[in-house]
Amino acid sequence: MIGTRPAGQHTVRQHNAALVLGAIADGPGTSRAGLSAATGLTKATVSSVVDRLIGADLVAEGEPERRVGPGRRGTVVSLSPTGPHGLGIEIGVDYLASCLVDLTGTVRAEEVRYADNRTPRVFQRVSAFLRSARKQAEALGVPVAGVGVAVPGVVESSSGLVRLAPNLGWRDVDLADRLGETFTVANEANFAALAELWHGSALPDFVHVSGEIGIGAGIVLDRALFEGVRGAGGEIGHLPVAPDGPPCSCGANGCLERMAGQEEILRLAGAETVDDLISALEAGNDAAAVAVATAAGHLGVGLSTVVNLMDVPAVVLGGTYARLEPWLREPLLAELERRVPSTAWSPVRLVRSSLGTRAAVRGAAGAVIRAVLADPEHYLTTHWPSDQDARGR
Amino acid sequence: MIGTRPAGQHTVRQHNAALVLGAIADGPGTSRAGLSAATGLTKATVSSVVDRLIGADLVAEGEPERRVGPGRRGTVVSLSPTGPHGLGIEIGVDYLASCLVDLTGTVRAEEVRYADNRTPRVFQRVSAFLRSARKQAEALGVPVAGVGVAVPGVVESSSGLVRLAPNLGWRDVDLADRLGETFTVANEANFAALAELWHGSALPDFVHVSGEIGIGAGIVLDRALFEGVRGAGGEIGHLPVAPDGPPCSCGANGCLERMAGQEEILRLAGAETVDDLISALEAGNDAAAVAVATAAGHLGVGLSTVVNLMDVPAVVLGGTYARLEPWLREPLLAELERRVPSTAWSPVRLVRSSLGTRAAVRGAAGAVIRAVLADPEHYLTTHWPSDQDARGR
Repeated sequence: MIGTRPAGQHTVRQHNAALVLGAIADGPGTSRAGLSAATGLTKATVSSVVDRLIGADLVAEGEPERRVGPGRRGTVVSLSPTGPHGLGIEIGVDYLASCLVDLTGTVRAEEVRYADNRTPRVFQRVSAFLRSARKQAEALGVPVAGVGVAVPGVVESSSGLVRLAPNLGWRDVDLADRLGETFTVANEANFAALAELWHGSALPDFVHVSGEIGIGAGIVLDRALFEGVRGAGGEIGHLPVAPDGPPCSCGANGCLERMAGQEEILRLAGAETVDDLISALEAGNDAAAVAVATAAGHLGVGLSTVVNLMDVPAVVLGGTYARLEPWLREPLLAELERRVPSTAWSPVRLVRSSLGTRAAVRGAAGAVIRAVLADPEHYLTTHWPSDQDARGR
Repeated sequence: MIGTRPAGQHTVRQHNAALVLGAIADGPGTSRAGLSAATGLTKATVSSVVDRLIGADLVAEGEPERRVGPGRRGTVVSLSPTGPHGLGIEIGVDYLASCLVDLTGTVRAEEVRYADNRTPRVFQRVSAFLRSARKQAEALGVPVAGVGVAVPGVVESSSGLVRLAPNLGWRDVDLADRLGETFTVANEANFAALAELWHGSALPDFVHVSGEIGIGAGIVLDRALFEGVRGAGGEIGHLPVAPDGPPCSCGANGCLERMAGQEEILRLAGAETVDDLISALEAGNDAAAVAVATAAGHLGVGLSTVVNLMDVPAVVLGGTYARLEPWLREPLLAELERRVPSTAWSPVRLVRSSLGTRAAVRGAAGAVIRAVLADPEHYLTTHWPSDQDARGR
């Protein structure tokens, strides 16, 4: 699972720390008395937990609470802007991206380096990039609580192994072993969907689809990522949308990625880059319009499958598809209506993501933060060993 | 949700009754002392619950427990064979089926009547069939706790409304309103998958696919039915396996049902019935073999989608597909291997259902029983009103 630590023996201390920190995250600028009311814990317990969270710079004290009427004004607390940060790294086919977020999910630094990663040297390159990202955090004077890594491939949730990343030429890659440290590794589309859940349209149920060189999807059901039985669910890049179509890099024919991926759209439109394609679309170029409509048809066939199987009421277009949304929308909706019986009584909602092409790396960084918020005691134990003596069972 | 009652304010009494009855179902022939050990409830509580369950004939006393060593031998209890029964009704396109099961899930009576149900008279016919099935139960001297109805269509879980059953020509049909009583209505493929879960291969995660006139699938993840966001999930009949193929009755083209349904296989093979087809296959008839292999290819395209999206490790072939399994197996597995990247490290298991063509109606009857076992207190309240005074909060 992404974004939460594996279930374990949670002590009362762990539970209370998570409860109080969660209440602070939900209502920044609350007094200890307010937290007591919000959590049902005694003021003494809240104060003790808050003091420890302040000690580890997870929480910071702010201006005294404004209050109308009598009574002592309590000092308010909020998530600390200098506290643990989450570092996200995305290994794209032709770029590396990093993103550093604070406890509130605010982006503090980001970087992108373009280069073809379809080379064995990619691991050295990622290692150097990671060092550079850590230096950014040092320069900002903030600690890094953990690193989330987004990869364009299938990740087995039990092992963290990248089972298959065809566009990178990877098979059974153990990043922890290759890079000498542990990460939260997940499929880039899953991280992008989580970023959309945390910072985007606020829909509880949606499929997030983004099209770059590969096509990835992340499916969110009831505000949680749907990962299938063994963590490799939500794979839509190789849905067969034209089973007798041209061969795909995976060995099958007419996969969604082959028929509606960025490379195919650019090829059909005779454009070099997505910027060129958009200029052509804006200028009313016929070939460009036909290329996007053709891709929209294939995307509609593939997404109809997802909607029919999951009964999911909304599609969020991310990445390059978000940029192409004005031209994709109508042909895509038409194909969905034709192929999804349930649109007769409940139409599919089509939403354009506001997160842009950096959603995946933001989700990777955010997953680290969500893990700290879900179990601050674990962060205290692993990052503040000097606090050891103060800890009980 | 099928098989359990909607969540409500469960009292301690409700909880204890379900706990004790569940322990009896799991270990028939257990003494009150054994139930106390199994549930953690006091012997006094267990005795009081058991007495009430015996009073309503949910549980029956049997032979004294055999015991080696000293101590009083306790009387053992089991689910009562004359207790509440579940009645399942299946409304097929060309048949009506009924099935009566006891608390252990054992089939006590079943009936099938063949007739084309694509007529407005279907509701009268179902009503008469239901009366006849109830008379069977009366003749056996057993009470009917409820009726599950399996339909070949999309059922909205919140309303119980049959939103769409194209092969019956139904749109927004309220069976409770049409027939003047309430039922547990669900898609036949979902009921069939539950029957497979309860009485079949004992797999925790699988997709059950059955092909008759329509093609239905039920998806079981972690021993529970996956119904998608609004209860209409798992629809695979209209997955586009040949998007530019011949028109389907739904208005789209090349749907799985159109390309790999029973009618298409028979047409391609030049056979009248499934029995004829199987005779031809056994005789080594070429046209029959090609027809089944062609359908297997399309089925592989459709199922690859399900496996890629859900990461589900097993496919159970039910209904007509179970009968055709020896001829479907190889071409189907080949297509799955070609289309599902994860087969490289974890092959898809293909299992033939042992439940035959009556799985759906058995699941419909079983859902009633599961609901009684999950909340016996509700059954006592609604079916044994004379017990009213004995009940607390």
